[in-house]
Amino acid sequence: MQNHTTAGGIAVAQRRSTELEDAIRRDPGGFRVLTGDRPTGPLHLGHYFGTLANRVRLQGLGVDLFLVIADYQVLTDRDVAERPLETVRGLVLDYLAVGVDPERATIFAHSAVPRLNQLLLPFLSLVSVSELNRNPTVKDEIAHSQHSAVSGLMFTYPVHQAADILFCKGNLVPVGQDQLPHLEVTRTVARRFNERYGHVFPEPDALLSAAPLLLGTDGTKMSKSRRNAVNLAATPDETVARIKGAKTDALRHITYEPEARPEVANLLLLAGLCQGREPAAVADEIGSGGAARLKRVVTESVNEFLAPMRERRARFAADPGEVRRILREGNERANAVAAETMQEVHAAMKTSY
Amino acid sequence: MQNHTTAGGIAVAQRRSTELEDAIRRDPGGFRVLTGDRPTGPLHLGHYFGTLANRVRLQGLGVDLFLVIADYQVLTDRDVAERPLETVRGLVLDYLAVGVDPERATIFAHSAVPRLNQLLLPFLSLVSVSELNRNPTVKDEIAHSQHSAVSGLMFTYPVHQAADILFCKGNLVPVGQDQLPHLEVTRTVARRFNERYGHVFPEPDALLSAAPLLLGTDGTKMSKSRRNAVNLAATPDETVARIKGAKTDALRHITYEPEARPEVANLLLLAGLCQGREPAAVADEIGSGGAARLKRVVTESVNEFLAPMRERRARFAADPGEVRRILREGNERANAVAAETMQEVHAAMKTSY
Repeated sequence: MQNHTTAGGIAVAQRRSTELEDAIRRDPGGFRVLTGDRPTGPLHLGHYFGTLANRVRLQGLGVDLFLVIADYQVLTDRDVAERPLETVRGLVLDYLAVGVDPERATIFAHSAVPRLNQLLLPFLSLVSVSELNRNPTVKDEIAHSQHSAVSGLMFTYPVHQAADILFCKGNLVPVGQDQLPHLEVTRTVARRFNERYGHVFPEPDALLSAAPLLLGTDGTKMSKSRRNAVNLAATPDETVARIKGAKTDALRHITYEPEARPEVANLLLLAGLCQGREPAAVADEIGSGGAARLKRVVTESVNEFLAPMRERRARFAADPGEVRRILREGNERANAVAAETMQEVHAAMKTSY
Repeated sequence: MQNHTTAGGIAVAQRRSTELEDAIRRDPGGFRVLTGDRPTGPLHLGHYFGTLANRVRLQGLGVDLFLVIADYQVLTDRDVAERPLETVRGLVLDYLAVGVDPERATIFAHSAVPRLNQLLLPFLSLVSVSELNRNPTVKDEIAHSQHSAVSGLMFTYPVHQAADILFCKGNLVPVGQDQLPHLEVTRTVARRFNERYGHVFPEPDALLSAAPLLLGTDGTKMSKSRRNAVNLAATPDETVARIKGAKTDALRHITYEPEARPEVANLLLLAGLCQGREPAAVADEIGSGGAARLKRVVTESVNEFLAPMRERRARFAADPGEVRRILREGNERANAVAAETMQEVHAAMKTSY
């Protein structure tokens, strides 16, 4: 497998992503995106600007969107999932709130598609233990895991991901740089399967996102577990409170200096992202208003930005049966796609007896 | 996980097996056996006396028999399966020939039961990489593998086996001593799942077989690949030829001395097994007839023994549609059982959204 974590590898992936953006605009129907989330808690603005906005953008261009709720993968770094039912339905609501259109996109749960899971078996035969040992993302996740022992599920993570992507013949996967090695495993699995059994799978391309890094209100990585995030489901009052508690500095004059004033710069970035403006322009407008005015501007920007999402969320949340139906239909669609793919896989492997 | 490979561990397993035999006679309906074979070629007399006879015996006692044709597991130690269609149908014919009753037993292919395969995912979360590394059977299989690199499928082998056994809640697994560590993984997986999510799975017992070790006609392990086996599908002429080529020694007087005369003793064992007599009694009857008479006796015994199997095989082979139907119905039954089990698994793991 190639090493895509070098600077050269990343540059190649970036150039390729630019070409892909052109190709998507020319023929959006030629692309199926597989992406998704582990249902470990509510999504927040970091997720939105990091990946969700991009998904909705791709959907708007006419790309076929498959969103996997990777529930089995929750167990890679913890023993059991907490309140899986609420978390999964919350995730569906988050997707719907940001504008995922259930008529066009397919939202499904990993555990609800047995034939997707089944692909893990032939795929495991295509990857060696030493290749799995070398995967830097798995190494990193192992280092950050709550577990002392590495589970077999964590160890084989890149291979489930290959199954997630390839069961629906996803050919485009939006990723951050840190996930390039995972996708390389998927590409290797697809290539080896095709070489051994005949062409069935695409070798999916990585679409590197140019998303800015939004930090939490405490200046560290925005995280579900650190109480430093503005959740997409936050009420206006919760948003006020969270931003009120944000770290700033003592200088009255507000300037956008990410190196010298990281916390202030981060709040300006957040306001800028919500307003669709440069953070420096937001700073200029605030001028000598100090931290209080900065926070007021940020809070208003966020609440205004979240308003249409809250409206959509409220509409869907009012009808829990509708959310269940959307997930059920997504699962059915994913199962139908998986059945088609497995039929090809069985034919290629000559396992239709 | 316990170490069952020590002499003490094996003695415990043997005592337990004696108790189990009593329990089976008292309540055969209380037992479901999961066993099976990798479809890598035709079965031979070594398989028959080693395991197949025991399966038919258990079926006769009224135990519910599930026979998995472990086709994905063929890929643990080779790149691709050779002529999978012929091999799998041949295996079904072998089963039917030895007396497996398709009305009572369930014959199914591993790859035809997606929900069985699916169990691999939650089960992998219950086992650590270091536990998988320690498994002596996997270590051994790795040492004997044709591959230089160990595949992810080989590495996770004991966990697929856990899925094979537990998907149908098999509570009894006939094994040789060398497979005790594998079954220990299954027991561990069942116990941990039940502890974490509530009781779903039995902790299956090993039923150690007391089968004698039958060697090939060249005095080494009887093996599909060494051309030293009498296949169950061999014609009378093929049997004659194979035994004619068997190794013996130059002494005219035939005696049963496994240490001093291993090749002669092995032929006597084979004739004895076929006749249901002690090998020493067969030797006495041959007396000074020499190798020629020994081989004639062995050939006749084997051919007589195989005659009813050949008859059953011919009957089923005459109607390929019937063999396909038997496998299809077995697959359907296995899928129905897997669906029931997965419903319980989803309820326990709270993954019914």
